[in-house]
This record gives sequence, structure tokens and C-alpha cells, in this order.
Amino acid sequence: MAGERMERRLAAILAADVAGFSTLMERDEEGTFARIGSLRRDVIEPRLSEYQGRLIKTTGDGFLAEFASPISALRCAITIQDYLSIAPDALRLRIGINLGDVIVEQGGDVYGEGVNIAARLEGIADPGGILVKSRPLSRIEVRN
Amino acid sequence: MAGERMERRLAAILAADVAGFSTLMERDEEGTFARIGSLRRDVIEPRLSEYQGRLIKTTGDGFLAEFASPISALRCAITIQDYLSIAPDALRLRIGINLGDVIVEQGGDVYGEGVNIAARLEGIADPGGILVKSRPLSRIEVRN
Repeated sequence: MAGERMERRLAAILAADVAGFSTLMERDEEGTFARIGSLRRDVIEPRLSEYQGRLIKTTGDGFLAEFASPISALRCAITIQDYLSIAPDALRLRIGINLGDVIVEQGGDVYGEGVNIAARLEGIADPGGILVKSRPLSRIEVRN
Repeated sequence: MAGERMERRLAAILAADVAGFSTLMERDEEGTFARIGSLRRDVIEPRLSEYQGRLIKTTGDGFLAEFASPISALRCAITIQDYLSIAPDALRLRIGINLGDVIVEQGGDVYGEGVNIAARLEGIADPGGILVKSRPLSRIEVRN
């Protein structure tokens, strides 16, 4: 749109969602909603802050975040999955991470192939698992 | 085999191979062989040593290595791919990394699903790219 500022950059995008969300909601809508809220507050937000991840947006059952590097995104993801794997009765997350080109809107929302790939990786990750795709920085710098 | 000692452990396995190896060999067998040798000596071995990776074995056009964590394996892979992306006329590697259960033979060779998944990830990685799959440590500890 005219006048709208956009920025292209290379970013490590982390996409996560709750495994089996629809089934959980069918069984217990309010309970699942409450569990997702506490997962966000007690686990996701503190870990994003610890690893300098920026929360881009939350979806019904997941979230998108941006990190400075795939290393810090993977560290953050491992810490989250490790915690959830031993927490009693915890929700299970699938996590995808991609280092790629994204378009950042003025408001902070992020689009582009870099985001789409992160979401696709998340879709094929195992519950409790992490899938990461990374291209080296310099290849992209050379290309631009 | 009777008397043979094996160890099961959780390991981060890195599998790498040269993209387009068959075509390169058809075009120039001796030249490609020499380039792979210098890639190994000048790039792979110093980087494995830097990131405490253990070389398990070399194949015609690639290698398998073991790391203490998927983080150090990813760091090592990024450093290698970043270097190759700017080196003039460098070979292109595809790299897959998997954290999973492996069986380690007395001689140091490594087998099992953890290795197979790393190889499959490598097979679908882009030339110059890295694919990582990770399961949290504690899930596996709980299961055993």
C-alpha cells in the first residue's frame, strides 16, 4: 500500500503450535484455552525473553517469534521442549525454525517465504520435536 | 556378535555430502577427488575440531560426525556452509543433523535410527543448506 513502510531482512523465524489442538478443544474447550494461556505466560514468554526472541503474533493454538540467529532460536526451542517433556500433564508443542528472507511491516508483523517455511517445518515436526532449516547468511548477502 | 561391545547413547549426528557429486565425477574424476580431499583437510577437519565434533567416517563424497549437542553441531554446520558460500569455486555441501538414539560400536562406528534420520535430512537439504531435527533429551531419558 502507498505510504506503508516495509523492511526486508534475514531472520530466524520460530513457528510453534499445540499438537492435537482440535481434539483437545472438542474434549474440553475452556480447560484447553486456560492451559494454552498458562503455557504462554509461564513457559513461552519467559523463554522468549531469556533468548532475546521477539513475539510476532499468537494464533489460537500457537505463536510466531523472531530471533537474531537460528542458534538462539534452537536454544530457546530446546529449553521449551525440554521443560514441557517433564512437566506433568503439559501440552505438547511442535516447533519449526527457519532462517530466511522475510518482510517486516511497520507494525512488526512478518511475512514471506521465511515464515511459510517455518510453518511448514512445524507442521511436519513430531509433537515435542523441533525441525530447523538454515541457509548461511553470506549466500543471501551475495545474492542481494 | 558374541563378545562385541556396543553402547547405546543419545547423540547429535551430522551427515554431509557434496551436492551434484555424480555429475562432478563424470566431468572430472581426478579434479573432483582432489577438491574433496582439500575440502576435508582444509575445511571439514579444522571445523570439527573447533566444535568438538568426532569424525565417525568418511564416504566417497561426504562424512558422518558426532557432536555432544545439536547446538554445537548446528554451529559447526553454519560455519562450514558460511565459509563455502563465499569461497571461490567451492564445492556445495548438503547437511543434515539429528539428535537421536544411536548404537556405538567398539571401533567407534555408529548405527541406528539417529543416523538414518540425519542421512534422510541431508538428502532433502538444499545445496548450501542445513536441516536439523531435535528431540528434547529428557523425553528420551524418561522413556528408557
